[in-house]
Amino acid sequence: MQIGRIVGNVWATKKDDDLNGLKFLVVQPIDCYSHYEGHTFIAVDSIGSGIGEIVLVVKGSSARVCLGKKYIPVDATIVGIVDNVEVDKGEKK
Amino acid sequence: MQIGRIVGNVWATKKDDDLNGLKFLVVQPIDCYSHYEGHTFIAVDSIGSGIGEIVLVVKGSSARVCLGKKYIPVDATIVGIVDNVEVDKGEKK
Amino acid sequence: MQIGRIVGNVWATKKDDDLNGLKFLVVQPIDCYSHYEGHTFIAVDSIGSGIGEIVLVVKGSSARVCLGKKYIPVDATIVGIVDNVEVDKGEKK
Amino acid sequence: MQIGRIVGNVWATKKDDDLNGLKFLVVQPIDCYSHYEGHTFIAVDSIGSGIGEIVLVVKGSSARVCLGKKYIPVDATIVGIVDNVEVDKGEKK
Amino acid sequence: MQIGRIVGNVWATKKDDDLNGLKFLVVQPIDCYSHYEGHTFIAVDSIGSGIGEIVLVVKGSSARVCLGKKYIPVDATIVGIVDNVEVDKGEKK
Repeated sequence: MQIGRIVGNVWATKKDDDLNGLKFLVVQPIDCYSHYEGHTFIAVDSIGSGIGEIVLVVKGSSARVCLGKKYIPVDATIVGIVDNVEVDKGEKK
Repeated sequence: MQIGRIVGNVWATKKDDDLNGLKFLVVQPIDCYSHYEGHTFIAVDSIGSGIGEIVLVVKGSSARVCLGKKYIPVDATIVGIVDNVEVDKGEKK
Repeated sequence: MQIGRIVGNVWATKKDDDLNGLKFLVVQPIDCYSHYEGHTFIAVDSIGSGIGEIVLVVKGSSARVCLGKKYIPVDATIVGIVDNVEVDKGEKK
Repeated sequence: MQIGRIVGNVWATKKDDDLNGLKFLVVQPIDCYSHYEGHTFIAVDSIGSGIGEIVLVVKGSSARVCLGKKYIPVDATIVGIVDNVEVDKGEKK
Repeated sequence: MQIGRIVGNVWATKKDDDLNGLKFLVVQPIDCYSHYEGHTFIAVDSIGSGIGEIVLVVKGSSARVCLGKKYIPVDATIVGIVDNVEVDKGEKK
């Protein structure tokens, strides 16, 4: 999985029917030191997360399994809100 | 998922039978600030999108599920036309 | 999906039985302006393509579905021969 | 698969119900010479591994199959603790 | 698929039961000109390959299907030993 910060929303009126009612959030991936890394992507919210929160994101076919419909065209889903990331002191970055 | 701008079409007469009747569009990925990022790729249109539009693209096995045939050789599908991307003001890029 | 140019063949006598009879081609990915981009990879031919042709390649689990056997160890398949890539004039690269 | 060093923990109280009881570890990918390479990511522990250990990680849909629940929103799982990586002497890096 | 050179072995006593008896090999990806490209990764051997050999590797869910167990936590499998890679003379690299 990846951790990332929610930095925005995407609105799309014309979309696949199975996507109706879902919230599309812009996620900026971060590393375990909260540094931004890599490109932003879009994830579906499954637990009531919002802008500014640090979240846990699952990708690929695993992103479909937690949305209640087996055949839903989603490849990235927010499945947790991160309380804390604890990094081993020996690790320098 | 990814957002991208449709920048072209691909025509292929000789192709897998299951792909007949599908529209293949060239997508240039963009980030949430509309900056171009990464390589172009080819996606199947599932909602009537066209050149110049900003679209929402799903990849991997999830790209198959919204085309009505379970075993269709597709790994990227356009599933939404983006109205607007709203980025948190605190975010500088 | 990706478009690419076929630049070679791979021969492997000792291989998984399910791969017998398949043609393994070396594909150089290209962007929509025919510029080479990214590393070469190996794809299975499913439509009679050959060296020098520009082809449409599907990857991941979707690459298995068009080869007639559900459980075949393949993750990239050539599913179309590209006639033409039409890029929107407004696009400069 | 990838090998990596466990460098931290992630805590998330609010998460998908199917993730309850799982341990989320921060993994820093390494190459076969133990050099750090690429971004950190989050993996679920399935064999009792902890901070500082070198582990074997499986990704994608394969990461779901070893956690006892077919439809669990996980895309990276730690499936082994590495005793030793033996590299061919002829290889210089 | 990818071609790569086997450059080492990985030993892991404590691992998922379904992985018992499998050989884990370190693969250095190469391009069609035998140049090293990208990071090393770990693949399961399915055809009796060993250090120094150039092999054909399948990744993702396709890597599971050739190991005789549908739900095995593997995402990269060696499925062929390469005899020869023939590159079109017109191709300069």
